[in-house]
Amino acid sequence: MHTFSDCQARDAADPLRGLRAHFALPPGLIYLDGNSLGALPRQAAARAAQVVEQEWGQGLIRSWNDAGWFDMPQRVGARIAPLIGAKPQEVVATDSTSVNLFKVLSAALAIAAADTPDKTVVLSERANFPTDLYIAESVCQAHGCTLQLVESAQIQAALNGQVAVLLLTHVNYRTGALHDMAATTAAAHAAGALTVWDLAHSTGAVPVDLNGADADFAVGCGYKFLNGGPGAPAFVWAHARHTARSDLPWMQPLTGWFGHARPFAFTPAYENAAGMARFLCGTPPVISLAVLDSALDVFDAAQPLGGMAALRAKSLALGDLFMELVEQRCAGMGLGIATPRQHPQRGSQVSLTHHDADAPHSAYAIVQALIARGVIGDFRAGDGAGAPDILRFGITPLYLGFADIWHAVDHVRQVLESGAWRAPEFARKAAVT
Amino acid sequence: MHTFSDCQARDAADPLRGLRAHFALPPGLIYLDGNSLGALPRQAAARAAQVVEQEWGQGLIRSWNDAGWFDMPQRVGARIAPLIGAKPQEVVATDSTSVNLFKVLSAALAIAAADTPDKTVVLSERANFPTDLYIAESVCQAHGCTLQLVESAQIQAALNGQVAVLLLTHVNYRTGALHDMAATTAAAHAAGALTVWDLAHSTGAVPVDLNGADADFAVGCGYKFLNGGPGAPAFVWAHARHTARSDLPWMQPLTGWFGHARPFAFTPAYENAAGMARFLCGTPPVISLAVLDSALDVFDAAQPLGGMAALRAKSLALGDLFMELVEQRCAGMGLGIATPRQHPQRGSQVSLTHHDADAPHSAYAIVQALIARGVIGDFRAGDGAGAPDILRFGITPLYLGFADIWHAVDHVRQVLESGAWRAPEFARKAAVT
Repeated sequence: MHTFSDCQARDAADPLRGLRAHFALPPGLIYLDGNSLGALPRQAAARAAQVVEQEWGQGLIRSWNDAGWFDMPQRVGARIAPLIGAKPQEVVATDSTSVNLFKVLSAALAIAAADTPDKTVVLSERANFPTDLYIAESVCQAHGCTLQLVESAQIQAALNGQVAVLLLTHVNYRTGALHDMAATTAAAHAAGALTVWDLAHSTGAVPVDLNGADADFAVGCGYKFLNGGPGAPAFVWAHARHTARSDLPWMQPLTGWFGHARPFAFTPAYENAAGMARFLCGTPPVISLAVLDSALDVFDAAQPLGGMAALRAKSLALGDLFMELVEQRCAGMGLGIATPRQHPQRGSQVSLTHHDADAPHSAYAIVQALIARGVIGDFRAGDGAGAPDILRFGITPLYLGFADIWHAVDHVRQVLESGAWRAPEFARKAAVT
Repeated sequence: MHTFSDCQARDAADPLRGLRAHFALPPGLIYLDGNSLGALPRQAAARAAQVVEQEWGQGLIRSWNDAGWFDMPQRVGARIAPLIGAKPQEVVATDSTSVNLFKVLSAALAIAAADTPDKTVVLSERANFPTDLYIAESVCQAHGCTLQLVESAQIQAALNGQVAVLLLTHVNYRTGALHDMAATTAAAHAAGALTVWDLAHSTGAVPVDLNGADADFAVGCGYKFLNGGPGAPAFVWAHARHTARSDLPWMQPLTGWFGHARPFAFTPAYENAAGMARFLCGTPPVISLAVLDSALDVFDAAQPLGGMAALRAKSLALGDLFMELVEQRCAGMGLGIATPRQHPQRGSQVSLTHHDADAPHSAYAIVQALIARGVIGDFRAGDGAGAPDILRFGITPLYLGFADIWHAVDHVRQVLESGAWRAPEFARKAAVT
């Protein structure tokens, strides 16, 4: 039996509790949507003002050199690298996750076409984040390949001799289910397939070890658990064995000047840059990159407190508490838990379902009623093929405490017990965020 | 004969002179690099603080709806539209120029493959901006087409029956030479080719009429004459006859969720959005878009003063003055004028050459000596195939006056007359911006 005073005691004993002060969260709000848009790190606001007013306003064009704008994709990438088990020179921050996925999936299929031309299938799971599947379908069409979608449990069995690339998102955006990256990559390699990992819902909350898993390519998001701001640049990683290849200069088809070996030589012929820079394309979004750069300072502050391992332990403890409180305090109210309970099988969110025979859109209404009370989670609609509507609660261990979880579940209980969610203003009308 | 007092008188009589107050230019600086990075509009700094501190920090995920983040690519695009002769719903602001060029060139070749499958050449000019050629070469490889590069004067003659797409930059980044968009587009259409225009060096300084020219596709830059900040999102336009096509759902291969008909339905199958939204891809860079949005307010302020026509007239007058002062005050100093003198043939910059038999890198050194004096232009190296090194001076009529041009050329004269540019600290050492 959890009690509120237990939660307060756990917060008092939490070595990470001081990290919350790095964030400018509105008072009274319980923010459980950091897996959709991370909260504002206080100093990111000052950094935004600096890059706009000083570096741009006063430095103007000179800041490309003087303020180090040119290599910002590499510098920010190098700071993300330790969070994902990569070497500093293996990561660049640029473009969007979708655009970066296009790059790495194209590269993976170019490599497969050269090395294993008989393999023509990209394998993914039906429950993958849709934009990943849209990009995959497009890249498959360009390469004359086929996108095959299976259920999560069927992936290993589907890794036959036809599979060129296995494309997976590390943590499922709906349920929070976590793939075993090392085991799955090993299985893919045993079948002769390359792996592309989308780390959108893991980077910054779940320890990732790309090199340890011997993965091939990865992309990830800057605005979720990295707190880089709305639409922050994404990042991209490739194993050194792939970036070193000189026989496939066009493996990455978005061949803009920042991916050129000598961008300011202005030669008419493309010549890919060495290493990871070949995955850059156009001029980098400097203001957004500076904000993301500043947001990463919080992870530096977490390092002496145990870093990603400590964050992961707290995330799991908060998630356990959330689920146990739902069982303890909301029993018989129609809620179900869609997130795997076992630690190795889940990321950093708790997804609930709700059943009410008379209200098919109850999950949506409950989320809206919670938001109205200052408990911000989000709603993800069912897929129309059996997957239910989801009430999704992201767990960001950088700024959430145990008492926050107590209050959040208490609000869930109140909203259900009182029937407040049945108010007309919470009814589902249109597509939502 | 121009005199300084003439220049002062022209500034006093200039109806656009008040626009300079919209910009936060460092005192004493003469900024002639707005064609590389536009200056900071004062209120853009306040807008950056608002989007970071209020919309992100306080609104958090709710701002996607409450602050209108979702349709920001369309809203900002609609504000750019009148500057380029487009309808509001025909432009979206997103991604980089290079990425957008990949989208529209892919779309143009997809259309050509469907409508004119015997045409397999993309025609461009050798002096086009290199990133355009790198992207074109990549897209050609993907479509089994050939990239043919000719000199500018040979374009019309090269428009034979093989050409599927003509890809040109409206204003040349080195010389400032301006293509006749209407005549060139008509010639391309007469040959059965589609046109793709890069408006990087024209939008915001040169009136553009895409629909009037009946062009097919265009991309442009947010951080040059639009003053949207370093790495600001670019924009993309397509003629309505192309976006309306339902037979080519995959014409735009960067098929991310923001280009989907129903992004938040999270369906696994891609279905392109109607209209121009199909040219969106991933989550838009909200902070950078907000800054670009704010920067466009200056063009609203210019509207009652004559808008783009008045800006163009002032730009040409400033450019004429610059070139005439070079002839008048720097005669016999080794300078040449690389920019076409005739108004219909040039954009909004003045490019100079410098010849010194004993100093092959004199153009570079002169630019550095000018920067040290607070006259910011930039250097563009020769192409190694006959095109000379360039001293490049961008003319932004929003914040430059006639006295600025007088002072700039006076500094050029002083630097040449004194030989100050020969100082060792200005010598060329490495690749430059």
